[in-house]
Parts: sequence; structure tokens; C-alpha cells
Amino acid sequence: MESHQGMTIEEYQRRLALGQSQLADWWQACRTQIAIREAHIQAWEYLSDETPKLDLAMADHASLKGVPVGLKDLIETRDMPTSWGTGGYLSSAGSLVDAPLVTLLKRQGAVILGKTVTTELAYFQPSKTRNPHDLSRTPGGSSSGSAAAVAAGMVPLAFGTQTVGSIIRPASYCGVFGYKPTFGTVSFAGIKPFAPSMDTLGWFANNVDDICTTFSALTRSARIESRHDLLGVRVGICSLPTDAKLTAEVQQAVSQAQALMERRGASVAPLRLDAAFDALIEHQQAVLAYEAAQSLAGEYRQHAYEMGAKLVELLEQGMGLPYHRYVTAKRETERLRWLLSEVFVKEVDVILAASAPGAAPEGLESTGDPLFCRAWTLLGVPCLNLPLSHNERGLPVGVQFIGDRFRDDSLLSIARTLMAPRY
Amino acid sequence: MESHQGMTIEEYQRRLALGQSQLADWWQACRTQIAIREAHIQAWEYLSDETPKLDLAMADHASLKGVPVGLKDLIETRDMPTSWGTGGYLSSAGSLVDAPLVTLLKRQGAVILGKTVTTELAYFQPSKTRNPHDLSRTPGGSSSGSAAAVAAGMVPLAFGTQTVGSIIRPASYCGVFGYKPTFGTVSFAGIKPFAPSMDTLGWFANNVDDICTTFSALTRSARIESRHDLLGVRVGICSLPTDAKLTAEVQQAVSQAQALMERRGASVAPLRLDAAFDALIEHQQAVLAYEAAQSLAGEYRQHAYEMGAKLVELLEQGMGLPYHRYVTAKRETERLRWLLSEVFVKEVDVILAASAPGAAPEGLESTGDPLFCRAWTLLGVPCLNLPLSHNERGLPVGVQFIGDRFRDDSLLSIARTLMAPRY
Repeated sequence: MESHQGMTIEEYQRRLALGQSQLADWWQACRTQIAIREAHIQAWEYLSDETPKLDLAMADHASLKGVPVGLKDLIETRDMPTSWGTGGYLSSAGSLVDAPLVTLLKRQGAVILGKTVTTELAYFQPSKTRNPHDLSRTPGGSSSGSAAAVAAGMVPLAFGTQTVGSIIRPASYCGVFGYKPTFGTVSFAGIKPFAPSMDTLGWFANNVDDICTTFSALTRSARIESRHDLLGVRVGICSLPTDAKLTAEVQQAVSQAQALMERRGASVAPLRLDAAFDALIEHQQAVLAYEAAQSLAGEYRQHAYEMGAKLVELLEQGMGLPYHRYVTAKRETERLRWLLSEVFVKEVDVILAASAPGAAPEGLESTGDPLFCRAWTLLGVPCLNLPLSHNERGLPVGVQFIGDRFRDDSLLSIARTLMAPRY
Repeated sequence: MESHQGMTIEEYQRRLALGQSQLADWWQACRTQIAIREAHIQAWEYLSDETPKLDLAMADHASLKGVPVGLKDLIETRDMPTSWGTGGYLSSAGSLVDAPLVTLLKRQGAVILGKTVTTELAYFQPSKTRNPHDLSRTPGGSSSGSAAAVAAGMVPLAFGTQTVGSIIRPASYCGVFGYKPTFGTVSFAGIKPFAPSMDTLGWFANNVDDICTTFSALTRSARIESRHDLLGVRVGICSLPTDAKLTAEVQQAVSQAQALMERRGASVAPLRLDAAFDALIEHQQAVLAYEAAQSLAGEYRQHAYEMGAKLVELLEQGMGLPYHRYVTAKRETERLRWLLSEVFVKEVDVILAASAPGAAPEGLESTGDPLFCRAWTLLGVPCLNLPLSHNERGLPVGVQFIGDRFRDDSLLSIARTLMAPRY
């Protein structure tokens, strides 16, 4: 059996159609990789022992046939346990129904390998997972296990959630592609809400093709085609907060991305956003605290004494926050969403921004700082981490591409064009 | 023990503070009323037998002390079963945690009486509940039991959800106040989603004061004060779709509301909305079908053969709907939300509209037509049904007041002023 490293989902589907691969091949390759690396990485909360029952005929129109996937341990399943990263104070042996994502994946022929490690209830309490590029470093969070499992080649596709920076940051730290689609693209049903006006389901992969294939499969929409080049594509460089000083390694990653885009014909220039956008960082904090205190009111009432200190602090902050502060944040967010949509019409096609303040920090006590994701998540825009650079220690440093809401196809097409081999 | 009919929550809190009532009094009165009327009305899916354990001292800052409430059987509880109106193909003896609403209510000292009947998964398959004003008629749906229980004096406060017209319509049919706050006001966690961009938690009461008290309690915000009069308040009369011909009984209800508002000093005039607003009815149908097909993907996969025909039809319609149709609906909705906000700034303070096409229709085979709620629910605006009129058979015919998003306090203050006894 040959290696599946570097194979895309589309290639595997072609091999299956031609009889060059079997439905269980990729699953078997993943199990082997897990057997080798899991003891060190600890990306999995639960691994299914079952050999997948796959039927090539049944899933005839499916586009993820035989593709092994990992699910963040926040996504409910009928036949696998969920513990929401709580270490057991909340746990379910199996839910009444699969989450919609799981149903969609099964319908497309994917194979659920198991549940990947999440931080406690998807907040900041670090998990056991280690960064595959340096075991002494955090993989980022909260979708720690999903990012690390993809980076370690244990699975080609894993799902996570982002409410603050829980996909883009770990993708950047682990050197993989991570995609947070437009808010509301994939149902969040069957996933414990944290801050419902920001909670977004997304996914990790080792190449942009698989990010695109997954988007099309989950929205049952057309294949994302790459363009011939990026001529005419307007790129604006702008991190939020706009006054953020980028570290040298992040500045270098942004410059490398800029150069790459320019080589493909894009016009890249700094983008100046209204100063009001900087206030989104604080508004995000208010919305997060207020909504989390509501969403997790029952968990707090029953389990506060078992919860991590940072989560308790956030929930209590939220409980004390006046309703009018929340309303102010919501109204201002909507105004700026509207304003940003106009920027996308008039000024840029893609925004190029920092994914994180730097490479994965040392230690496992923290999952790193989600600062550069806060505002974009609140705005609900699609964000894609591209692992284009490494710092001088060889650690990955990502950048993010940000697009207009519900124009995911445009954003992904640009990214796919950028990453396509030149001919 | 005296009757509690007509007592407001605030009056009861005053009586408790003065020692004129006991904490279990209202609960006892409700149990008596349920014993008398439940056999005919059938508003309850589950009734708790437990005598409430209440502690006056413990809930010292609470504003719903001893207030009995009913919860739509879609709202999860730790210590009571939930069956989502499925008749058993989905059922839970008790969830891991209470839904946030339940936690908030308990924190405020409320007493959960039980679960009220919902239509199947909150869609159109009628329930067993009958209209307290005429047992041969529907109470409306999907929050059938909550509306009927409040109308029948079984409970002063009951909670429901609205995704299409599931609060305003049954409130109109049952002759009670029904409130759907701004989308996102109270957490929907612990409630099965149907169409997450519209699912809204709301409540029913017999007077506007209790609607206001509950809003303040759930948002922990200031008491909604009534004004001296409605001088300077601009009221726009406008139902959606704008070209809807109102039946004589609904026209009469709107005219009576207009006259009442004018007597209090308001300026009432027809409001002309952009013709694009009429398309919201179709957009709502697209968003509903698309999101429901996602949200209930697992339920469909496991239980389609047990589901009502209308629900299956909706889900299959949603599964066939192209993603770009959904995106078109979402984008146009956002544009019109923004446009409507400007209308609220420049032209009106409140919109006065029909709640339903008429009084409760005869028979239990249908829960009536939610047409007049579709667009407003999609727009996310707060809507209040006021039971101001009766038709010539003596059946209630409501009207709705509609306000600007996140300006619930203004809308409720106007309604409270209108309903206040003149002095």
C-alpha cells in the first residue's frame, strides 16, 4: 500500500473510480499514521475501532467517498461519545441524532475516524495536544486536535469551530490550511453553542484543493475552479486591529504572501479601514462574554466548581455585563458589516492579514493569542489560513485571506489559483 | 385562597414582599385551573407533580418569585422529559443540563410547571391542543400549548419559539399577548434548532405588564416604564406582504388599534415600504427550507418514515434547494434589514400590522396560516401581538406591533402606555 501523503480528495475519488484504490485504503493509511504518532501528539479524544462499512455503489454521487475525517469533540454523534473537552464533567455516550455536519459527511461517503481533542468547552483551558512541528509548543486552540491531526498526517480532513480564533490560529501554528466559511454556512445544530452570533463550523486540510472540495460537498454547490492567474484581483493588506505592530516573522509571512500574489498578477496595496473597525476587538469581547454567559448558564450552574478558571472568569464577566452594552456591540457590528461589504465591492477582492501574532508559542499552558481573529470572526466574513511561511526556527507562520460574506466561492477560487502549480 | 386571574407578576411580587401571598399560592391556583380545564384544552405534554421547593430568602433579588411558567416541549430540561412534539420517536428523559432559559428562570425564582404541547418539531403537523375560546378550533401553532395554557388561565407565563409565525399567530388566535423579541435576545441553546437564522424564543402572557417584566428579567435590564401618553409617537400601518387584502375582521382589528392609539395621542398613517419587501415572503420560504433541511438532517435520516408529511415535504424541498438560492435570500434579507432600520429612524416608531389572516380557523387539521409573520420573522424585528379585538362570533383577533431591532424597550414602552388604565 502506497502513502497517501499529499494526495487530494479529488485524486482519491479518481483513483477509486478507476479501481486504482480501494475504499478502505485511505482509512488504513490514517490508522497507520495514528499508530505511529498519536502517543506524542495526542490529537484524539476518542478513536473508533470499527472498520468502516463502505459501499462504493451506495455513495455513487458522493464526493468524499472513503475520506477519513476527524470531528472536534464538540460535535455530537449517535455512535461515538462526546465530552466537550470537559474531561468528563459533561459526557454523552451518544446523542439521539447525529449533528447535521455528521449526517452530511456520511451522506457524502466520508468515514468518521473519531473525535479530536478540544480545549474545555472550546475556550482557553489548554488541552493535552502537542504541536506536531515541535512537541514543546501548543498547537493552538480550541480546535487543537483537529489542526494537529491534519498537520501530523493522521487524517486528511478534520472539523473544528471558531468563535474567536479557534480555526485560523491553530491552522497557522500547525502549518495547515484552515477554513472558517461565512457565518451560517454549515449548520451548528448538534454542537454546543458558545457565542451563537459568532460560532462557526470550519475545517482543516493539507491543501487548498481539499478545502474547496469540502466546501462544495457541504453546500452541494459547484466545484470551485481556479482561474488562469490573478490579473485584476485587488488585494488589500490590513490586519485588525489596524494599529497592530506585526512581529518580524509575521511581517515576513505577509510580505511573502504579497510577493506570491503579485507574481500571479494580483494588485496588492495597503487597505485603510475606518478607525471604527478597531473598536470591534472590544465589541467582540463583549458579545463573547454576554453570549457565553447565556449559552453556558446551565453548565455554570451545575459545574462551575469543575470548570477552568479562565472560563469561569469569562462567564462571570458576561453575567455582569449590562444588556445595553451587548446591544451596542451588536448594532455597531451590523453597521461595520455593511461598511465592509461596500469595501469589498469598491476597493478589494481579498484582504490579506496576519493569522496570529507569531509562530506557536512555547509551552502548553496557553493556546496563544487570538487577537488577529477577533474582529473578523465578529464580522462573519470567510477566513482562510494559508501556511505559506516558516520562521527562522522552521516553525510555520500563516497568513489569512479574508473575503466578502457569502462570496466564499470567490475567495476560495483566488486561493486555489494562487496555490495551483504553474504550467 | 383568592383568584389570581388578572394579577400581574409585579403585583404578586409586591404581595409576597408584604406577606399577603405565599410563594406557592400562584402555583396552587394554576394547578386548580389545570385540573378543571386540561381535559378539554390539552395544553400540556408533561406536568410536574412536584410541589415546588421555594425559598423566599434565596431568591431575594429575583423578579419572578413563585411565578408558574410553562415551557414549550422543545426546551430541554434536566429534570423533565422532552419529546419535541414527536409523539415519542425522539424523546429524552432529561438533558445533561437545563437550557439557558430554564436556568435564567430558576435563578429568577420562577416555578416550572411542565412542558406545553408543540406541533411536531415546531412545524405544521397539528397537535392535540384546542383553542380555549372554542374547542372546535385550532389554537394556532407551533407554540400551541403555551398560547392555550395562558389563555385558559392555567399559567400566567409560558414560553414558545417562532421561526415563521409560531408565537404571534397562536397569541392572536387565543387572545393573549405574545412577544417575539429581537432575534438573538434570549439564547436558543438547549432548544432544537429549525432555521437558526430565524429561530427566536418568546413568551405569552395575559397582560402587557407581564410581557415587560419578563423581558427585563431575562435581559437583566431596567423596568420598562410606560409614558404619560403617546403624543409624538409615529405609527405606520403596514402588513407584509404589502399587497395583502385584509379580511373584514382583521381590517376592523387594525382600525380599532389605530383608534385606540390615536386617542392616546399617536399619529397614525399608512406606511409604504419598498416593493422589494414583498419578496421577503419567498426568501423566508427559501431560508426556512434550506436551514431546516440542514438542522434536521439527522432526524430526517433516522426518522423520515415517522415524520408528518408536511415536514418531510419541507425537508426534501430544502435538500433540493441550491446553495446560491439560499445565499441570495440571505443577502437580500440583510439589505432590507438595513433599509427597515432607516425607516424606523426616519419615518415611524412602531409598525401596526395584521397578526393573522383572521380569527382561529375551524377544525384541528391545520394550525392556520403564518403569512403575516413570515417577513417580520426573517427581518428579526421584535413583534408583539395585542389581543385588542373580537370578531362577530366573539373570537379574538389580534394585531401586531413591530419595532426596530434591539429597540425592544421602546416598543414595549409604547404598548405598555397604550394598555395602561387612564387616570
